[in-house]
Amino acid sequence: MALRALGSKAAAALDKELMSTGAFSIDQLMELAGLSVSQAVWKLHSPQKGKRILVVCGPGNNGGDGLVAARHLRHYGYEPTIYYPKQSKNELYQRLSQQLRDLRIPFTEDFMASLSSTDYLVDAIFGFSFEGEVREPFPAVIEALRDSKVPVLAVDAPSSWNIEQGPPSDGPGKGYHPDALISLTAPKPLVKWFKGRHFVGGRFLSPEMAEKYGLDIPPYEGIDQCVEVPAN
Amino acid sequence: MALRALGSKAAAALDKELMSTGAFSIDQLMELAGLSVSQAVWKLHSPQKGKRILVVCGPGNNGGDGLVAARHLRHYGYEPTIYYPKQSKNELYQRLSQQLRDLRIPFTEDFMASLSSTDYLVDAIFGFSFEGEVREPFPAVIEALRDSKVPVLAVDAPSSWNIEQGPPSDGPGKGYHPDALISLTAPKPLVKWFKGRHFVGGRFLSPEMAEKYGLDIPPYEGIDQCVEVPAN
Repeated sequence: MALRALGSKAAAALDKELMSTGAFSIDQLMELAGLSVSQAVWKLHSPQKGKRILVVCGPGNNGGDGLVAARHLRHYGYEPTIYYPKQSKNELYQRLSQQLRDLRIPFTEDFMASLSSTDYLVDAIFGFSFEGEVREPFPAVIEALRDSKVPVLAVDAPSSWNIEQGPPSDGPGKGYHPDALISLTAPKPLVKWFKGRHFVGGRFLSPEMAEKYGLDIPPYEGIDQCVEVPAN
Repeated sequence: MALRALGSKAAAALDKELMSTGAFSIDQLMELAGLSVSQAVWKLHSPQKGKRILVVCGPGNNGGDGLVAARHLRHYGYEPTIYYPKQSKNELYQRLSQQLRDLRIPFTEDFMASLSSTDYLVDAIFGFSFEGEVREPFPAVIEALRDSKVPVLAVDAPSSWNIEQGPPSDGPGKGYHPDALISLTAPKPLVKWFKGRHFVGGRFLSPEMAEKYGLDIPPYEGIDQCVEVPAN
């Protein structure tokens, strides 16, 4: 049985509720989301398979999850590099970036060069709030992710995919099928079109919130912050 | 080789530095500290040994770590109960408490009754900033922890122990020797007198900060947020 999916409007409402009546701060939620991403990387691609991880961060919360994940990956012994071409002035993202600089994690401005010298990729460009056009400089980046042989873990959504309707029929994301996906809090409707390995992370949903939004609590095991679920 | 210890003044300076130039928010640090406490509970006392965990929270940051740990324990399948007699008006602790209420985690006002019906205890009363007198209502609580046969994990310090000089020679904490201790960020000097199982948690220290404060990065394994280290 597939886990029930959370549409983009419902995902935005759930996020808002978690941070109002749910009393979570965005720092907390992003820490747990990014931690679950880092654990999925560990399960998919152990350091023995190659320590170099290129984390591609978009301008919003999906990019923030990527920044948190990179920090944890560094502590696990990986060698992350960040490509973060549209850095937000938002104080939280600036702090998360500083935490990475203090760990001597490099920020690259040359995506193609970094792509050619990495063992694994994390696509943290766009998440559940993505709609419309892929803006510069991301079209070429997404095409490169599509064409690269380096395996990719997408965070919450393969970037450029429509949250409700899945893979785009044209544009840079046409034909982009990452090897793996980690859905945060709950799968989005696009998972119906996703054929790779699928994880769910973000272990903070209460049973009552899950019920209110018509979601399932994923079958997390032990102390794991993410869990692999069957492909749809 | 024992890990090097961090005195109480140095611990306060390190905390301050993490939250200023280190760019961490207290939400983030407390989330990671509490998460590491929950993982230590899992290693020490799996749910198969009994799911009831009484988390005793003090008025400050040590209590906050306990609140975070309790939330994670609930997600792991435990049945935590909180004893939190001196609830702070601080907004962060109020939010952490609300997160627990949303998971239907009970707050008890009857410590002795709760003590008699729990399988495990977490002492999150006082941490590295403790000095001087144990204030009401904690003297009787610490005496009860000392006399109880229920195993106790202490967070950062056995409550009432002097951070530098270890177990008190009189007062309610005389003879209080918890079964286990999790040191956050780094062991405190009191570990020299601690003979139980010893963990270290709080996996966020950069190599440069460790060097600056004369500390060791504990030998964390894989994605673990805490690690057991040899007794001193």
